[in-house]
Amino acid sequence: MSEDPKHISDDGGFDEAVRSKDPPNRRAFLVGATSILGLTAAHLLLTPSSTHAQEIPDDPTQVPGALAREYGSRSRFEQSQRFTKSQSSRTPLQDLHGIITPSALHFERHHNGVPLIDPARHRLLVHGLVEHPMIFTVDELKRFPATSRIAFVECSGNSGTEWKGPHGKTVQEIHGLTSTSEWTGVRLSTVLQEVHLKPEATWMLAEGRDAAAMTRSIPLDQIMSEALLCYVQNGEPLRPEQGYPLRLLLPGWEGNANIKWLRRLKLVSGPMMTREETSKYTDLMPDGTARQFTFDMEAKSVITTPSGGQQLQEKGFVEIRGLAWSGRGRVKTVEVSTDGGQTWKNAEWQKPILSKCHTRFRFAWHWDGQEAILQSRCTDETGYQQPTLKALVNVRGTNSYYHNNAIQSWKIDEDGQVHNVHM
Amino acid sequence: MSEDPKHISDDGGFDEAVRSKDPPNRRAFLVGATSILGLTAAHLLLTPSSTHAQEIPDDPTQVPGALAREYGSRSRFEQSQRFTKSQSSRTPLQDLHGIITPSALHFERHHNGVPLIDPARHRLLVHGLVEHPMIFTVDELKRFPATSRIAFVECSGNSGTEWKGPHGKTVQEIHGLTSTSEWTGVRLSTVLQEVHLKPEATWMLAEGRDAAAMTRSIPLDQIMSEALLCYVQNGEPLRPEQGYPLRLLLPGWEGNANIKWLRRLKLVSGPMMTREETSKYTDLMPDGTARQFTFDMEAKSVITTPSGGQQLQEKGFVEIRGLAWSGRGRVKTVEVSTDGGQTWKNAEWQKPILSKCHTRFRFAWHWDGQEAILQSRCTDETGYQQPTLKALVNVRGTNSYYHNNAIQSWKIDEDGQVHNVHM
Repeated sequence: MSEDPKHISDDGGFDEAVRSKDPPNRRAFLVGATSILGLTAAHLLLTPSSTHAQEIPDDPTQVPGALAREYGSRSRFEQSQRFTKSQSSRTPLQDLHGIITPSALHFERHHNGVPLIDPARHRLLVHGLVEHPMIFTVDELKRFPATSRIAFVECSGNSGTEWKGPHGKTVQEIHGLTSTSEWTGVRLSTVLQEVHLKPEATWMLAEGRDAAAMTRSIPLDQIMSEALLCYVQNGEPLRPEQGYPLRLLLPGWEGNANIKWLRRLKLVSGPMMTREETSKYTDLMPDGTARQFTFDMEAKSVITTPSGGQQLQEKGFVEIRGLAWSGRGRVKTVEVSTDGGQTWKNAEWQKPILSKCHTRFRFAWHWDGQEAILQSRCTDETGYQQPTLKALVNVRGTNSYYHNNAIQSWKIDEDGQVHNVHM
Repeated sequence: MSEDPKHISDDGGFDEAVRSKDPPNRRAFLVGATSILGLTAAHLLLTPSSTHAQEIPDDPTQVPGALAREYGSRSRFEQSQRFTKSQSSRTPLQDLHGIITPSALHFERHHNGVPLIDPARHRLLVHGLVEHPMIFTVDELKRFPATSRIAFVECSGNSGTEWKGPHGKTVQEIHGLTSTSEWTGVRLSTVLQEVHLKPEATWMLAEGRDAAAMTRSIPLDQIMSEALLCYVQNGEPLRPEQGYPLRLLLPGWEGNANIKWLRRLKLVSGPMMTREETSKYTDLMPDGTARQFTFDMEAKSVITTPSGGQQLQEKGFVEIRGLAWSGRGRVKTVEVSTDGGQTWKNAEWQKPILSKCHTRFRFAWHWDGQEAILQSRCTDETGYQQPTLKALVNVRGTNSYYHNNAIQSWKIDEDGQVHNVHM
């Protein structure tokens, strides 16, 4: 940080600093303005509302800026993006701040592409073990009492590359299948009241209107108090890749159970054993049996800066920043280790701390220029503590792909480079 | 709501409803699929990632959907937009849900356009009554400990058309100069520690790098605990119209004091009496004096649905929805009247209820098809209650433009049309 303003007077920032309302500086301002006007003649705006057609003015105070726009977009200087494969994209956690994920950067996962659905022609069928099967339009669902909550959604395949050794490079590649939004919709319980459940209706098959006809079986007793039929994400209608115009939201449950493009709820008396809960999204245990119906995403945390692929520029103060969450409720503590797990200290929280929601933690650290291994571990309000990878593998073996919530280790080299390592 | 699924089998939604995993329906699915494949031959995707080139399939389950994208956008069926004049745009409050305003729809107000600023060449000068004047790059500011909070920003000109009689038609036109985001940045107090304030430094001139060189004087003691130098809005870098790459955030204070495109903080011993705090943003009282430095935005609420320009379709259940906020802290109660203020009942809250933040309220109402006048009034944690327009005018007269927080009245005609009226 320069301590002398004069040293950077040629960068366009402080010729104009003298343009205060102080009368003694008035003449300096006028002289500055004349010379700047000469410079900026070649930098005129082409159209006021199209920032991409603008040249960057040396002195933005000397040219009128762009006019107001009906729907905004980010600055041309910002290019953070999701890491995409054809059927999934991962949130750039290393670039984010706070807890809200911008909708345009919310991770996505679909099993046969994002369907194009006209909301006026979309219907939700609720049938099966009910007294009065019904069909709802989206507008009809919007007339019911609404509720909103801020909640994370995490794909159960998140961090799935890391069972057998370090695989991914960046926090985005490894852990980017989790995001947080404010979701709005009608409570599932409100809609089910309309159809009158029969006593034997204990599960529900939820089906999407995508080309995978994604289906999952949901036990009603565990989610009735929190499940929403959502039509809004972060104030706006759901984004297409998040299930537009309607999705199921089961706070804290693995992402794929939060059926998107929701078109059908069939009330049933037990699980339907669909492809996505038998062949997929089960965990193959060391003894060859499969762990089935692992709905809750267990407590997890990850340091997002510094993280894999980043580079510390200099010794000294570094704020370690990260996210923690639990599918079982509020996060209670996050501890940070800078010595590979030998010692742990509590991180600081940012409020509000919300149930089943990304929570932001921060930890002040002085990097002495030596090698270091950074880790975070989360404990949720149930007392459950995020395990080391060794402890997780001891129980689960290495045949699993889903439901990996192990502690992430980032190694800092002496030259400041940050790597994914396993401890 | 139709109670018989068969009645809408031709809308593309439920030919496929039989495509469950239930073996008895398997044959029905195959027959359906064959006929649908014939229909969709003319509806092939042109390119998987360009939704605007796609025809809308009759049955989205029969054609692969779009591939994942690096940066998302909203559905082509959603067109809600800001109401723009050249130097301002207003948030479509009637279309929003929850408390977060999508960044693309956050209101804007600028005094000579939105400047185009290269963040790498942007600097913040902190000088005046300090021991060590300093210049910071944006990257330097990002290295300081960060903090985030969800807060509203409201222009003090919001609702300013309504002093002398009903003027605006919709809630967007009248009250759309308020929005809520999660903001992230470094505390002002952290940066001021670096420059070492002299004892006589009690105010601060904040200056923007726009073509208005927007300047306001800020009394330090009132805002030191909460003021942020922000570089992030809703997880992403600030939008250009919100001050990219750097703005001042003074939670609860009138919008224009939250200087955008921030380039300078000059520590001073009293207010500098800039244009924007003398000629503008003061309130002309009935006796001809001006009320100056009205920083706090006082408690306010507004019903967003039903609201002006909307139309109730039928008698029966209506969920009245709205927003309440106070620049002085948390909202304590919101009451709703459906009889023009003769009787009031408490509305329901949505949690979390955050200080200096939009808060969502809801009120279940049965519309009997008669004329009605809907109102909401807010009381904040200081005990201050939002006034009627009459009570406000009794004190302030009608020469004011800024700082109108009066109760809004929406009249519902017998035909269901909703109008702005004054009570």
